Amino acid sequence: MRDIVQIGMGKTAQRAHHLDDVAIVPSRRTRDVDEVSTAWQIDAFRFELPFVAQPSDATMSPTTVIEVGRLGGLGVLNAEGLWARYEDPTSVYEQIVTREEGVTAHLQQVYAEPVKPELIARRIKEIRDAGVTTAVRISPQHTLDLAPTVLAAGVDLLVIQGTIVSAEHVSTVDVPLNLKEFIADLDVPVIVGGAADYKTALHLMRTGAAGVIVGTGADWCSTSDEVLGIRVPMATAISDAAEARRDYLDETGGRYVHVLANGDIGTSGDIAKAIACGADAVMLGEPLRVAAGSPAQGVWWDTVASHPKLPRGAVGDAPDDYPFGTLAEVLTGPADSPSGRMNLFGALKRVMAKTGYRDLKEFQKVELVVDR
Amino acid sequence: MRDIVQIGMGKTAQRAHHLDDVAIVPSRRTRDVDEVSTAWQIDAFRFELPFVAQPSDATMSPTTVIEVGRLGGLGVLNAEGLWARYEDPTSVYEQIVTREEGVTAHLQQVYAEPVKPELIARRIKEIRDAGVTTAVRISPQHTLDLAPTVLAAGVDLLVIQGTIVSAEHVSTVDVPLNLKEFIADLDVPVIVGGAADYKTALHLMRTGAAGVIVGTGADWCSTSDEVLGIRVPMATAISDAAEARRDYLDETGGRYVHVLANGDIGTSGDIAKAIACGADAVMLGEPLRVAAGSPAQGVWWDTVASHPKLPRGAVGDAPDDYPFGTLAEVLTGPADSPSGRMNLFGALKRVMAKTGYRDLKEFQKVELVVDR
Amino acid sequence: MRDIVQIGMGKTAQRAHHLDDVAIVPSRRTRDVDEVSTAWQIDAFRFELPFVAQPSDATMSPTTVIEVGRLGGLGVLNAEGLWARYEDPTSVYEQIVTREEGVTAHLQQVYAEPVKPELIARRIKEIRDAGVTTAVRISPQHTLDLAPTVLAAGVDLLVIQGTIVSAEHVSTVDVPLNLKEFIADLDVPVIVGGAADYKTALHLMRTGAAGVIVGTGADWCSTSDEVLGIRVPMATAISDAAEARRDYLDETGGRYVHVLANGDIGTSGDIAKAIACGADAVMLGEPLRVAAGSPAQGVWWDTVASHPKLPRGAVGDAPDDYPFGTLAEVLTGPADSPSGRMNLFGALKRVMAKTGYRDLKEFQKVELVVDR
Amino acid sequence: MRDIVQIGMGKTAQRAHHLDDVAIVPSRRTRDVDEVSTAWQIDAFRFELPFVAQPSDATMSPTTVIEVGRLGGLGVLNAEGLWARYEDPTSVYEQIVTREEGVTAHLQQVYAEPVKPELIARRIKEIRDAGVTTAVRISPQHTLDLAPTVLAAGVDLLVIQGTIVSAEHVSTVDVPLNLKEFIADLDVPVIVGGAADYKTALHLMRTGAAGVIVGTGADWCSTSDEVLGIRVPMATAISDAAEARRDYLDETGGRYVHVLANGDIGTSGDIAKAIACGADAVMLGEPLRVAAGSPAQGVWWDTVASHPKLPRGAVGDAPDDYPFGTLAEVLTGPADSPSGRMNLFGALKRVMAKTGYRDLKEFQKVELVVDR
Repeated sequence: MRDIVQIGMGKTAQRAHHLDDVAIVPSRRTRDVDEVSTAWQIDAFRFELPFVAQPSDATMSPTTVIEVGRLGGLGVLNAEGLWARYEDPTSVYEQIVTREEGVTAHLQQVYAEPVKPELIARRIKEIRDAGVTTAVRISPQHTLDLAPTVLAAGVDLLVIQGTIVSAEHVSTVDVPLNLKEFIADLDVPVIVGGAADYKTALHLMRTGAAGVIVGTGADWCSTSDEVLGIRVPMATAISDAAEARRDYLDETGGRYVHVLANGDIGTSGDIAKAIACGADAVMLGEPLRVAAGSPAQGVWWDTVASHPKLPRGAVGDAPDDYPFGTLAEVLTGPADSPSGRMNLFGALKRVMAKTGYRDLKEFQKVELVVDR
Repeated sequence: MRDIVQIGMGKTAQRAHHLDDVAIVPSRRTRDVDEVSTAWQIDAFRFELPFVAQPSDATMSPTTVIEVGRLGGLGVLNAEGLWARYEDPTSVYEQIVTREEGVTAHLQQVYAEPVKPELIARRIKEIRDAGVTTAVRISPQHTLDLAPTVLAAGVDLLVIQGTIVSAEHVSTVDVPLNLKEFIADLDVPVIVGGAADYKTALHLMRTGAAGVIVGTGADWCSTSDEVLGIRVPMATAISDAAEARRDYLDETGGRYVHVLANGDIGTSGDIAKAIACGADAVMLGEPLRVAAGSPAQGVWWDTVASHPKLPRGAVGDAPDDYPFGTLAEVLTGPADSPSGRMNLFGALKRVMAKTGYRDLKEFQKVELVVDR
Repeated sequence: MRDIVQIGMGKTAQRAHHLDDVAIVPSRRTRDVDEVSTAWQIDAFRFELPFVAQPSDATMSPTTVIEVGRLGGLGVLNAEGLWARYEDPTSVYEQIVTREEGVTAHLQQVYAEPVKPELIARRIKEIRDAGVTTAVRISPQHTLDLAPTVLAAGVDLLVIQGTIVSAEHVSTVDVPLNLKEFIADLDVPVIVGGAADYKTALHLMRTGAAGVIVGTGADWCSTSDEVLGIRVPMATAISDAAEARRDYLDETGGRYVHVLANGDIGTSGDIAKAIACGADAVMLGEPLRVAAGSPAQGVWWDTVASHPKLPRGAVGDAPDDYPFGTLAEVLTGPADSPSGRMNLFGALKRVMAKTGYRDLKEFQKVELVVDR
Repeated sequence: MRDIVQIGMGKTAQRAHHLDDVAIVPSRRTRDVDEVSTAWQIDAFRFELPFVAQPSDATMSPTTVIEVGRLGGLGVLNAEGLWARYEDPTSVYEQIVTREEGVTAHLQQVYAEPVKPELIARRIKEIRDAGVTTAVRISPQHTLDLAPTVLAAGVDLLVIQGTIVSAEHVSTVDVPLNLKEFIADLDVPVIVGGAADYKTALHLMRTGAAGVIVGTGADWCSTSDEVLGIRVPMATAISDAAEARRDYLDETGGRYVHVLANGDIGTSGDIAKAIACGADAVMLGEPLRVAAGSPAQGVWWDTVASHPKLPRGAVGDAPDDYPFGTLAEVLTGPADSPSGRMNLFGALKRVMAKTGYRDLKEFQKVELVVDR
């Protein structure tokens, strides 16, 4: 089925495809854009936009998490980020934003400040009080430590996320997190990832998660390829995870685990392609940098950009040709820029209309071409 | 037959090709350039050049529509463009051309002015009076509203064009345009599109249209890929539509519907490749910006660049290395630039001569290579 | 055998490869560089270097033609170029070289001056008197007119060259040149081309030519693709012509027609790849611009760059990072630049040594990889 | 098995892949980074890092050779480099580093100074006295001349390296080096290369070498492709050599010859991919230029960049966006740059952890995708 390439006499590799390699070619009926729905639901939570925010400090503060919720998406705060380390991170942001040189080293230093459970609780309360669906992200390494605090503070959804999360972590020193047991004991639904292939996605689905993140959250500022040699062709990874979703649905007689695409999604065109490959929703980080109120004022860094020993993402201002606007304009328009970076979900609706689909589940069947 | 690619376990895609991916390799006899004809005929109308103008306000005014007609092509005025909204759009053009920032927002504002039927009628009369074949474009959405005005004013050809037009538009609010019934009632021939695949092209042929537009009219300023994830590999799309033309010719026992290639055609080399893939004629927009008398003086915008909520094309001056000349020089030379942007149809004749073909219909059989 | 690609339902194309797409990977013995020979012989003429100069005025004056001959290659003067149009073209060159704008238009004007047979005769005499093998190029269109002059003046080899030459030119006005009859009547060997495929190459071999030129002489300044949609993937074209050479050798019981690769050869690496694909020798034009004594002092234009109606090549100075040197340094070194533009044939010897081959005919068998 | 491509009717080529064409996609368990080992052993010598330094003067002085050894790698001094030609090369380095123009010509002149055996002996003693594993490189051409000096001075490992080394060199003038006899007579283990294909790698293994170098040591400054048309797709070359290693292991009933990847390795991601393709260790040159104490202070040149007649590599400063640090930071971190050029082997450990492997031998089995 899949194309296997002979790298050399001693090695084969699977042929894999990026979102950029594929395109949507309308080939069916058309439909009124007003009759298209982009709504999706995970567990008891329904959202008008198939959109979960990447829990990066560059774009997610308690304020922007709340705003995302109000606009129809799911904001996620990083329970190990600046808002959990500093009473008031305003001046920390200011120093990062105005820094001219050595920004990575500065980030490393700023993130050396310990995480404070009481701050996590306070941030969660702030978001809950605003009345939106409340979600925070914790890393697999700190899940056992921080989960009690987070759960006690009353989250609606828990996001357990690392660059790569496997259902089988090996350690001879620590007792590794047993995701299956951990999730079974929880009352709140869990979103877990990232996974990059069919098998890992399927294993993570079997942990009882409500959603599985596919991809490492790479964007054009990421250097995971240069540093680790890891590059996840997202069209292939999403499609493989969608197959795992179908197989798991069959093996459980009806449990539908959502696939969240996280990586290489910078424009509304990318969002459409990710859904077309089988995603139920997308995670967005870097594209939110241009929203007014973004705490880092347009500067962007990925979570791994501040790694103490092995940073894996560039930090810097938005390119000059990026359009800026309100978060509402970024998400639902109207756009006054043709860049694909404004009115992200208005654009999704329009391509669904131009290809004649009514909802996301149907649109996952749209035909694609490969032309690169 | 067609190469099917496995994107992932849950998705396949067809391999598709752009005009840039193919090249013409002479492999037969050669012929005197003076013995080559580029003439074509649609319905009762014969043209020396296989060329229909894209109905963009940036290049098509009543004056340039007439000039195109006199030089052997078919000019098309947009019945929903600036000339239908403003008594005298001169100052509107001037404001667009001299604008330094926020051009897209300015376009959106300018196109918010309502369309005035009496202006449409006046523009059509001006063109008719000049004695050239008269054609205007209306959108599928406004066809039922505007067609009476347009027909009463006496057009020779009607162009019903949207980015993507299907023969089956779904709407629960409005009664959608039934193209087949609409065209059957008309006395003038209709050109309709764009279509992007075999099935849509065939369905549009079955509406009774005289010509079908293939492609969305994308050029290098378009951002349809970034905004919608839609990208039409034109070599494949044209070839598929040409097959629909053959199948429809067979099913009707002889009705030949013309295929007009509209997209990714910037140079004379692209024109030759589009015909080689099976097009009967090409639509040109952006390449006309360099013609003296172009109403926007070299500035170019696609029709969708002014969309009120989701603009999908950049607006701006021609690059510094573009050659400028009269419209006659652009179309039939002589060229004093090696860029492929002057003497567009003189170049077409020359490549036909170098490959030994006498007319366009024969030249559709020329051999191609794929090298990208 | 050859990979056939389905462009769309109505069109197929052959997959073809450029010299850039392939690379030489040493996989055999190695050899002392001093024991390698790059000599070749066409008809009675033997050359130390497998190198024929493109007859471009930018690099070929009577003086440089002679110098090429003395250094072991075959210089070729254009019998329809500046030296045949102007008594003393020095000031003409000076005007081209110092021109800042409108160079193409200026070239067109300069080449409007008629060709003067007496000048052709005088140039040929100058070259003959220097004692080197004497060759001039005439176009197929002017072969019948100019051949008497050229032959009377005493050339050793005649080059009949156009962008694309077929053995079957169709014209209803003129009596086209019958190459087979023309060559049969001649006493001097003829090199003819360019051809771009197997069949044309075979037909040209059957005219009785001693050598067939493969390719259109494109270099990175050429715009044949933009203007005509013609692009000749040289690795494929050379390999196809080499097969024609083998088939013709078989059908004639031993007549070996030389294949001269003409296009996309800018560096010594390209020369090696062209021979590896089956060429007996290469034609070089643009790479000679950096030689001291080049009449246009580093400015380069292809023959078709001055076409009166459809110029197909840019005119301009050499890029800043080009190395300059004597013609001897360009051809046989030593090089003090790592650019692949100096010591072109010393490099060829070295790659032959690194792959263990003794002469060009053996080296045509070297193994290649495709990696692009 | 391997994909064979028809270049033209007369030539085929193998499809080959670069390290850049492949990526690692985690698809298995994960593991604690502290439980991963990158150690390897060749003959009696064990190293914590799978890293052998390219013997380039730009980065390897006796001091840096010693430092590499202390940090866990194998430094290699060029016995035919500046330290063997000059009593004190400090001012020679200074002239190269401060040179603005004509650097290649200057290098050629500097390397015209004869090699002095007593200097080789002195450098080897200096390294030995420091207590690290001592290795020098000699070229195949000078192996018979220089080996006595080198062996008498007491090296631990001998590196016999040229761009391309075959087990069968043909010469009618000199008696070529018989590697098999030469190595059989030695007491010290030999690393030999470069090889670029399965057969040459196998033949070199059969000479009795302890390690075989795969690749020509190309980096982004190399111009071997432009000059010679030689380009070694390393993913394929490494994988082919790994197959030779397996076959040779079988044919000898247990002799394991190490495969050292040498070429296109600029970042930690490249290191991971090289091991993933089957390498036992990597050779690094250009990446070391940014280490404090590098004798050429960031300027880099490959050994062949100073070739007297045919230089094949550019000489110049590091790009502005390169990070600088101590050699320890370059090799084992911590990094404060996300470029993939710091903490090279910390990154290797991390990707091994993220894919769940404990040691290098296991990690050679990691799954790859091809996406370019």
